[in-house]
Amino acid sequence: MEYTFSDRVMTLKPSAIREIFKYAADPEVISLSAGNPAPEAFPVEAIRAISEKLLRENPIDALQYSVTEGYPALRQTLTDYMKTRHNVGRDFDDLLVTSGAQQAADLMAKSLLNEGDVVICEAPSFIGCLNTFRSYNARLVGIPVESDGMNMQELEKALQTEKRARFIYTIPNFQNPSGVTMSLEKRRRLYELAKRYQVMILEDNPYGDLRFAGEYVPAIKSFDEDGLVVYMGSFSKVVSPGMRVGYAIGPKPILQKMIVCKQGEDVHTNIWSQIICHRLMTEYDFDAHLETLREIYRKKYAVLQKAMQEHLAPYITWDEIEGGLFVWCRLPDGVDMPDFCRQAVLRKVCVVPGNAFLTDESQPCQAFRINYSTPTDEQLVRGVAILGQLIRDILKK
Amino acid sequence: MEYTFSDRVMTLKPSAIREIFKYAADPEVISLSAGNPAPEAFPVEAIRAISEKLLRENPIDALQYSVTEGYPALRQTLTDYMKTRHNVGRDFDDLLVTSGAQQAADLMAKSLLNEGDVVICEAPSFIGCLNTFRSYNARLVGIPVESDGMNMQELEKALQTEKRARFIYTIPNFQNPSGVTMSLEKRRRLYELAKRYQVMILEDNPYGDLRFAGEYVPAIKSFDEDGLVVYMGSFSKVVSPGMRVGYAIGPKPILQKMIVCKQGEDVHTNIWSQIICHRLMTEYDFDAHLETLREIYRKKYAVLQKAMQEHLAPYITWDEIEGGLFVWCRLPDGVDMPDFCRQAVLRKVCVVPGNAFLTDESQPCQAFRINYSTPTDEQLVRGVAILGQLIRDILKK
Repeated sequence: MEYTFSDRVMTLKPSAIREIFKYAADPEVISLSAGNPAPEAFPVEAIRAISEKLLRENPIDALQYSVTEGYPALRQTLTDYMKTRHNVGRDFDDLLVTSGAQQAADLMAKSLLNEGDVVICEAPSFIGCLNTFRSYNARLVGIPVESDGMNMQELEKALQTEKRARFIYTIPNFQNPSGVTMSLEKRRRLYELAKRYQVMILEDNPYGDLRFAGEYVPAIKSFDEDGLVVYMGSFSKVVSPGMRVGYAIGPKPILQKMIVCKQGEDVHTNIWSQIICHRLMTEYDFDAHLETLREIYRKKYAVLQKAMQEHLAPYITWDEIEGGLFVWCRLPDGVDMPDFCRQAVLRKVCVVPGNAFLTDESQPCQAFRINYSTPTDEQLVRGVAILGQLIRDILKK
Repeated sequence: MEYTFSDRVMTLKPSAIREIFKYAADPEVISLSAGNPAPEAFPVEAIRAISEKLLRENPIDALQYSVTEGYPALRQTLTDYMKTRHNVGRDFDDLLVTSGAQQAADLMAKSLLNEGDVVICEAPSFIGCLNTFRSYNARLVGIPVESDGMNMQELEKALQTEKRARFIYTIPNFQNPSGVTMSLEKRRRLYELAKRYQVMILEDNPYGDLRFAGEYVPAIKSFDEDGLVVYMGSFSKVVSPGMRVGYAIGPKPILQKMIVCKQGEDVHTNIWSQIICHRLMTEYDFDAHLETLREIYRKKYAVLQKAMQEHLAPYITWDEIEGGLFVWCRLPDGVDMPDFCRQAVLRKVCVVPGNAFLTDESQPCQAFRINYSTPTDEQLVRGVAILGQLIRDILKK
């Protein structure tokens, strides 16, 4: 049999990160390339207690088919929580529980994009969502990320010229991979531009609760009086990514299409895990849990900071982060970034080459991404020391 | 904001069944319209024991990110099981764990179908998958289902004329909604035709393990020496649909594209539930569990049979089933089927109008679908009695 594929998937490749994960699976390799929450961040005891009680008292609720929109009690709790805490959600909005926030991006793309339509993205941006948009044959237009978020002049230029732009995809808090947080001023400006050019916004906020420094900045969705923004939230970084529970909050007409698409994708999200998320939010001190997480990441980032200052400075530079899981590191001019990453693997340290996160991977890039949440403190220090030795060896040549 | 949508979702509507479910949610209504496993069919004790042990001994395995292909141990176990028991899977095949079998259909459609491509389906067929194919703007061509499966003359005619046919979608065992099992002869013929016309087959087998009468018939995939067939399996009917664990077995090049698409859809399937399915298969007597299920459905179907013979015969006719969850009932000529279903709802019994399962819902249809697995025995008898009274009242007028 000669296999032929749809045009949309013809050029799709497994993500570059996945290839790197193959090396990272070697137990001798120190992986600074993942994006996993710290193992100590999982509320294991609470999940165990909830699950046991649930399977004892209401097993059929956890095991039977459920509705596509999501577990009603979880939808209500999240709707109230996001409104009260973050001013996210208006009367014209609805909330859909998704199988990870990734699925919200997929459903948004499927509902809005015709082949050849444009998604305006941050450059660099989260490769998982870029590939999702690519899988619907969208064209990606990347807007450079500065230390306070997207370059707004470039964004406006893109909105003026890209007549097929359908939405702007942004991760405003502790962006993956750059670690950058968009300023309040830029958030307002982005919203104004989207409104003026009548382009939707897809706001992805998986890391927002992991702020361990600096000041809270409101979500773009909190300004949304016009129904422009679909907001993506997730339990992956604050409860468990293995459960695959995320959600989308957005204008009802958009959500209705997303719900029909979800019905055809996976019918509904694992209901057992949805109930666990609901009970964690309502029967446990969820705020205290989030504070514990922030403390874990604050400490872990301090370990990374110290190691980087000791081993990477002044040759490799980076912006300090205020939360999230990633630090974006820049190599000196003249150093071959892909070669640096390959040599790091030979020395048993994995980082992700920065061009993997670009809308056009062939563009020159001097950066790589470090994740500090997954490795142990000891691995972190050792891994950074190896990278420091590597850059010194390269510069000596 | 004026919302516009992609062409592919413009005409998508929530399924007719979903609308019926709204009535069925009324506790006074007897729902014969669902497709849920019998509540007593869930292996609750085993799931509880496995889950407790897992969260005590290996919580991070159950809660952390996992790989897109699926839990390696489950993939290996399923590969061996399907090869040994059903001769399904060759060296050229791979196995992907999906979020319910529904996702396998979605990934197949996404990987293979350009807009306007044709999927050849049974008429009637499972509405969930028909809507998935529609959501990629595929054109559906329905082949009438006879008491031993698709009409093969019609299938060949369609293969001759539909040059854009990409795959044939079939549920060979206890088809949803018709209850029909395709004969061995027709399975072989279908495979030959697919091979001759170089069209793939998507074989959906969610009910195969629920055979309570008649003789086992081998899967179409068991003949597949040419890499023509993608086989869809599911834990939804034999363990728990709420967990959303299914799988696809098919030629590696197809599966590779499906894996990349899945990465963009939901990254991976809930890993906790995957581990539970694996341990159920390996640490428990899975065969004995399946035998228990067959016994539950054998008994429940006997209750339905008796009630139908008493109340529906001879006005309403049906083919006896050998397994699965559904019975397809035909009204006498001249009775308005949609009106019958509406009147049944007024009398507090829900069934699904047969045209909901057609590739063209506007075609005339005298059938409706009864599900017997979800209601209690008492509800079943009462519901069928009400339908019997209704048909008598209609015929008297």
